[in-house]
Amino acid sequence: MKVIADLCIVPMGVGPSVSRYIREVRTIIDGSGLTYDMHANGTNIEGEMAEVTAVVEACCAKLHEMGVERIFCTMAFSTRNDKVQTMVDKLTALNSDA
Amino acid sequence: MKVIADLCIVPMGVGPSVSRYIREVRTIIDGSGLTYDMHANGTNIEGEMAEVTAVVEACCAKLHEMGVERIFCTMAFSTRNDKVQTMVDKLTALNSDA
Amino acid sequence: MKVIADLCIVPMGVGPSVSRYIREVRTIIDGSGLTYDMHANGTNIEGEMAEVTAVVEACCAKLHEMGVERIFCTMAFSTRNDKVQTMVDKLTALNSDA
Amino acid sequence: MKVIADLCIVPMGVGPSVSRYIREVRTIIDGSGLTYDMHANGTNIEGEMAEVTAVVEACCAKLHEMGVERIFCTMAFSTRNDKVQTMVDKLTALNSDA
Repeated sequence: MKVIADLCIVPMGVGPSVSRYIREVRTIIDGSGLTYDMHANGTNIEGEMAEVTAVVEACCAKLHEMGVERIFCTMAFSTRNDKVQTMVDKLTALNSDA
Repeated sequence: MKVIADLCIVPMGVGPSVSRYIREVRTIIDGSGLTYDMHANGTNIEGEMAEVTAVVEACCAKLHEMGVERIFCTMAFSTRNDKVQTMVDKLTALNSDA
Repeated sequence: MKVIADLCIVPMGVGPSVSRYIREVRTIIDGSGLTYDMHANGTNIEGEMAEVTAVVEACCAKLHEMGVERIFCTMAFSTRNDKVQTMVDKLTALNSDA
Repeated sequence: MKVIADLCIVPMGVGPSVSRYIREVRTIIDGSGLTYDMHANGTNIEGEMAEVTAVVEACCAKLHEMGVERIFCTMAFSTRNDKVQTMVDKLTALNSDA
């Protein structure tokens, strides 16, 4: 099942600044080969549900390895079967009259 | 990786009342054998990440089969490696002084 | 506008165990007089949008006072105008055939 | 309290294609004067908590006026008091070694 997900990974217990952890997350997502776009509050990523969730799990495993004892994560996604749609298509639809 | 997740599945495009779909979701979650607790805005569920996400995917697949063309889903979860914790443990911790 | 919300407040940077903070959150929510139900991953709360968000802000302000420098918070809610519905009604609907 | 929020508004019961509603949401957010950035799965917006939640409520009210009987909405945000940070700062931090 194809999903377009918005992922947010929150390292807990390691101080208020977490960008060094989010850079590791980005490296893992980038290495997955999936289409993604990092924004100010998370990362949009598209792929098969099992691929996307495997990437999320790999990110969490890496943060645990780096010493993050607890991680909070949100993943919002949509799936549709009336048509094939990408992240780019969603933004394009917003800017058309269709 | 063990997770405690809060899952919310939102059928889109099928009218404002969705309880018949949520009953199907409950049936699938119940059949999974995972520990869960349905509340007013979603379902808490605990298990291995891959088990939980497979259940989520099965729920979405079922709703598509039932004619729901688009589904929005949120999954918030936490994972920790400093100790083993269940949903019941989390609520117990709130009611103790520890 | 009446909302039924699911609120999750995540104190960052204060170690993996956060129940003493969540107890303060519960005290504030309880003092608000709004109907609420705390579950393993968050708190369901119902009321006018402005009331609910004022409670959320008060919770965050309290945690900052307690020394939490960064807080991540999720609030998922639904609003409907086809009928008046409470959190209890939602759970009742799941258990009926209507 | 200043927040950087990620907002997702999901019109339910009006078919799988919702871009005409999301365009109205964008118009309202744009008219608020708050800094925002729309991405494939939602909109990042920064401002005072009460300003941001007032915009969210205005968006929901508008969709109800347009005939959407039920709306599901997620708002994830973070607040910090150790430093002043904007959405741009967050992305900049990711690309620096600091």
